[in-house]
Amino acid sequence: MAQWIYGRNAVEGLLHSEQRVLELYAADTMKNDAIVKEALKKKIPVVYVPKTQLHRMSGTEKHQGLLAKAEDYRTYTLQEIIDGAKKKYPLIVILDGLEDPHNLGAILRSADAVNADGVIYAKNRSVSLNPTVAKVAVGAINTVKVAEVTNLVNAIEKLKDHGYWIVAAANKDSRDYRTIDYKCPIALVIGNEGKGISRLVLENSDFRAGLPMKGKVNSLNASVAAGIFLYGIESNRFPPTGEAKYEKENQ
Amino acid sequence: MAQWIYGRNAVEGLLHSEQRVLELYAADTMKNDAIVKEALKKKIPVVYVPKTQLHRMSGTEKHQGLLAKAEDYRTYTLQEIIDGAKKKYPLIVILDGLEDPHNLGAILRSADAVNADGVIYAKNRSVSLNPTVAKVAVGAINTVKVAEVTNLVNAIEKLKDHGYWIVAAANKDSRDYRTIDYKCPIALVIGNEGKGISRLVLENSDFRAGLPMKGKVNSLNASVAAGIFLYGIESNRFPPTGEAKYEKENQ
Repeated sequence: MAQWIYGRNAVEGLLHSEQRVLELYAADTMKNDAIVKEALKKKIPVVYVPKTQLHRMSGTEKHQGLLAKAEDYRTYTLQEIIDGAKKKYPLIVILDGLEDPHNLGAILRSADAVNADGVIYAKNRSVSLNPTVAKVAVGAINTVKVAEVTNLVNAIEKLKDHGYWIVAAANKDSRDYRTIDYKCPIALVIGNEGKGISRLVLENSDFRAGLPMKGKVNSLNASVAAGIFLYGIESNRFPPTGEAKYEKENQ
Repeated sequence: MAQWIYGRNAVEGLLHSEQRVLELYAADTMKNDAIVKEALKKKIPVVYVPKTQLHRMSGTEKHQGLLAKAEDYRTYTLQEIIDGAKKKYPLIVILDGLEDPHNLGAILRSADAVNADGVIYAKNRSVSLNPTVAKVAVGAINTVKVAEVTNLVNAIEKLKDHGYWIVAAANKDSRDYRTIDYKCPIALVIGNEGKGISRLVLENSDFRAGLPMKGKVNSLNASVAAGIFLYGIESNRFPPTGEAKYEKENQ
C-alpha cells in the first residue's frame, strides 16, 4: 500500500518527515525547483511528467506540479503481535480512543524503551500513525509494532485467550498500581485524554490500576501516565539487581 | 504586574486560555462585537473608550479595537519555594533548558500530582509560562509554584545549602534510578529535549539517575521521563502500605 501526497507544502513536509518517499512525480517544467532538488539530494527517484498527466494521476489540478508516492507506515495484525511476543513476560499497550498525536508519538517512544511487544488501537476511534506521530516518536514508529484493529473488545478477548491479563489505567475504583503482580503477559490499557477508558473496555479489564495522586489537579498527561505504568510494570518484573539499595555516605 | 494584549486573535486566544483577564478595553464602536460579548459573558469588566485612546494605551494603531489587561502568571522566588517546602521530604524539579511548552505543561501536571514543592528554570534558557503551557497543564500552572531564576548553578548551590540532594536525570554514566535513596530533600534535574543536561549543571549534581532502556531508540520524551522519575522518587519514599503485594487468584 502507498499514500499519494500532492502540493508544495504537503510534499515538502513529507520530505522532512520520517515517512519513506518511494517516488516523486514532478511537472517537466520544474527541474530546477527547490523541492525537486531536495528530493534528488535525498536519493528519491524523480519522474518528470507533463502537467496533464499529474492532473490525471492526482485527480486534481491543485497539485502545484508535485505528487509524491510514500510508503504507508507498516502496521501489523494483532495475531502477528501476539505471535511475535516471545519474551518471558509479554507486554502490550492498548490505546482506547487516544486523540493527540503527540501522546501517541511519546507512547511509542516509551513502548520502545521497555521493549514492549506492540501497541494496539481501534482504527476509527483513535489517532493513527501520521507524520506528527513519526516526528514525536523519533524513530520508534519503525521499531514498535502497531496493530490497528476494528474492535478493541474483540482484541481484548483474543489477548485473554492467549493468557494476557488486562490492566486498565484508571484512577476511579482502582488499586495502587504497585500492588499488582505483573509477572505474566500484560496488556495495559490507556484511555482517552479527556474521557478516560470507555465503559465496555473497562468492564472487560481484569484490574484497574491507579497512580497515587496527591495534588489538586490530579490528572496526568496520557503519555506521562503510560510511561509511569510501563516503568512500574518493568520494575515489578525486573527489580534492580546486584548490590543493595545505595545509601548516601552521610547517613 | 500585568500583561497588555491587543488585536482580535490575541485577545480571543487570551479569553480561551487559563490566564486571568482583568479588564478589556474596547473601541466604543464595538459594543456588539462577538469577542466583547464573550468577555462580558465571562464577567470580565469591559471599558469602552474612543479609538484614539486605544492608540495611546497600546502604543500602536494595530489594536483592532481590542486591548486586554491580563494577570501575569504568578511566579515565586527560589527562597519562597524553599521556605514553603515544609514536607518531610521536600521535592523540587529543576528544568535545564526545556524548550517545548507541551513538556513544561505536562511536567507541571506531574509535579502537581506528586505535590512537589516547586519547579525551577532559568528564565532566559527555557520555555516560560505562557498560554500553551497553561492549556496543557490544565490548572497545574496555578497549583505548582514556579521560580524563574537567572542562574541554575547558583540555584543549585542554594538548594544544597538548604540540604537538598541534586539528582540529574541522565542516562550516560548513571546508576539505575531505583538504587538511589530519595528519603531526603531532593531536587530532580530534567534536561533539554535534545541536548540533555548542560555540563555545568551535571557537574554540580550529586547523582546521575538513569532509566533502564531496552529498546532501539532509547530516549524518552522529557515530560514522560520526568513523570517516571517523580513517581519513582515517590515510590521509594512512600511504598504501598497495608496488605502484602496482591497475587492473582490462579497463581
